[in-house]
Amino acid sequence: MNAPAQISDHKDSAPSPAERLWALASAEMAAVDTLILDRMQSPVGMIPDLAKHLVGAGGKRLRPLLTVACARLCGYEGESHYKLAAAVEFIHSATLLHDDVVDESALRRGKQPANLIWGNSASILVGDFLFARAFNLMVETDNMRALGILSNASSVIAEGEVQQLAALRNIDMTEAEYLEVISAKTAALFAAATEVAPVIAGRSEAECSALKDYGLKLGLAFQLVDDALDYGGFESALGKSIGDDFREGKVTLPLIRAYQSADAETAGFWKRVIVEHNQKDVDLEKAVSILRAAGALQSTLDMAHQYAVEAREALNIFPESDWRNTLQDLADYVVDRIN
Amino acid sequence: MNAPAQISDHKDSAPSPAERLWALASAEMAAVDTLILDRMQSPVGMIPDLAKHLVGAGGKRLRPLLTVACARLCGYEGESHYKLAAAVEFIHSATLLHDDVVDESALRRGKQPANLIWGNSASILVGDFLFARAFNLMVETDNMRALGILSNASSVIAEGEVQQLAALRNIDMTEAEYLEVISAKTAALFAAATEVAPVIAGRSEAECSALKDYGLKLGLAFQLVDDALDYGGFESALGKSIGDDFREGKVTLPLIRAYQSADAETAGFWKRVIVEHNQKDVDLEKAVSILRAAGALQSTLDMAHQYAVEAREALNIFPESDWRNTLQDLADYVVDRIN
Repeated sequence: MNAPAQISDHKDSAPSPAERLWALASAEMAAVDTLILDRMQSPVGMIPDLAKHLVGAGGKRLRPLLTVACARLCGYEGESHYKLAAAVEFIHSATLLHDDVVDESALRRGKQPANLIWGNSASILVGDFLFARAFNLMVETDNMRALGILSNASSVIAEGEVQQLAALRNIDMTEAEYLEVISAKTAALFAAATEVAPVIAGRSEAECSALKDYGLKLGLAFQLVDDALDYGGFESALGKSIGDDFREGKVTLPLIRAYQSADAETAGFWKRVIVEHNQKDVDLEKAVSILRAAGALQSTLDMAHQYAVEAREALNIFPESDWRNTLQDLADYVVDRIN
Repeated sequence: MNAPAQISDHKDSAPSPAERLWALASAEMAAVDTLILDRMQSPVGMIPDLAKHLVGAGGKRLRPLLTVACARLCGYEGESHYKLAAAVEFIHSATLLHDDVVDESALRRGKQPANLIWGNSASILVGDFLFARAFNLMVETDNMRALGILSNASSVIAEGEVQQLAALRNIDMTEAEYLEVISAKTAALFAAATEVAPVIAGRSEAECSALKDYGLKLGLAFQLVDDALDYGGFESALGKSIGDDFREGKVTLPLIRAYQSADAETAGFWKRVIVEHNQKDVDLEKAVSILRAAGALQSTLDMAHQYAVEAREALNIFPESDWRNTLQDLADYVVDRIN
């Protein structure tokens, strides 16, 4: 049904599934946006200034879009999904602000990261503020189960971030450990964002479990593609710099796969640039050639594609509808978003 | 009834009110400690290592002690107060870990701060983990009102921290602004720690309000004393370095009061060391002499004493008991803890 994902420059003129989902949910996402802008306000001016730089200026709002779309898929007619969607975006934004300080990245959403403008301290503290505001919003929904799901995801995310930090420059990281890290740091929030929807809609345990599974698989596919793109995308299209993982010594699946099949000379190259963290200007280019020659980027994208297929299948428990079809197509799109 | 607080070296041999409260609550605080140690565990080893350094190795546990003592004052017989007390300590610990990165302090609880051992990134992320774990604990109590109180306090704390950051080196900070900052960054968590106790005990609104007020006033007194001690205590007794606020250019009440009454030459001194942040080795000593001569430390302690009196009075709504008396005496102790 789906062709394997390819690295290509091909760009369709037809709207992407993400755009179609945005169109379906546009009125509700406008309500979420209003709520986001409202709840990042504070008499302490540095807070809305910094938050607006990150949250206000767009980003794809993919996670809150998932909450809203899944709530509609579940026939939810209340208003709590706006608050949970905004809470999900605040949790995500808080982690981005803290990641900027941790990763020392030079670009975030195509712009200078907040910490390079306002300083690390402001990014840490405004991140804390947004995280706390996320919980304020959740409390307002008066749904303890949804709160439990999102607070659990929050501690799992932090756990994944620490595990990733502890594994920096560890070239012997296994695929299983890598999958643990991305399940925690990325997929847990996708899974929570989709699972809270059937929960507030009062749907069956089977449907809650299906939507959690959809989010988890989608999140895994998303992060695998991100990690492949870090060695193969284009800065202008991605809004983040290329080679960040490489420069930080972050070990991701492409590198794990390439290292497994490396001869002695190539293994020496990886040890120098990752373990010893001794990198020259030409090394990123060389790393990309090695990864491509070893098929490591393609095999990473293949795994992403497999998770996308599983995400699509998880939704088969729901009857066909525009919401279901578009959420299913979104799974493929997450893998195909190479442009 | 209470003599005005004095800066002195006097040390009683009788147990302090904090020690008496610990003795009254010792069995329950042991349960809180077990919970704290249990919930800071993680398969990601860096998390318990770092958390144990800060949380496991003591500290006064003043805030969770307040939650436990106030719950007993309210005749609470359940087990949720253990979870809320542990959550309060986790929120406090998370802010300490982030403060260490923000403030670049050289000592925390008499030890090297975690960020100087494990790095800033680990302190940021483990702080996030503890903060999320606090919410996991709160969710388990299944009390949405308590959750609302603590999540609101969390966003107010972050707001206060950002306001303090934005006011660094601002010698024109007013007393009102200073009180806003310390109400938010310190007193809000004390107030939440005490208010959740009558909430889970199902006590009247008047009693909830009285205990919130007690915590707020106690927290204000506590921070005022802290800010005076930063210019007048002894490193060995305090477990934090002296002159931190001065070196960071943090404007606190002693400085605000001294600047108000400064002649042109002294005003010039404050502008150089705080606004221009141009400090020489002898400047801290000179600052302390100016503050003492202007009576600024004593007037800060007097204000703390006044808040302690109000904290004591707030508890008069409760019938006399060991719990009430010791909590009332604790208010005086917070001001008198000069040794």
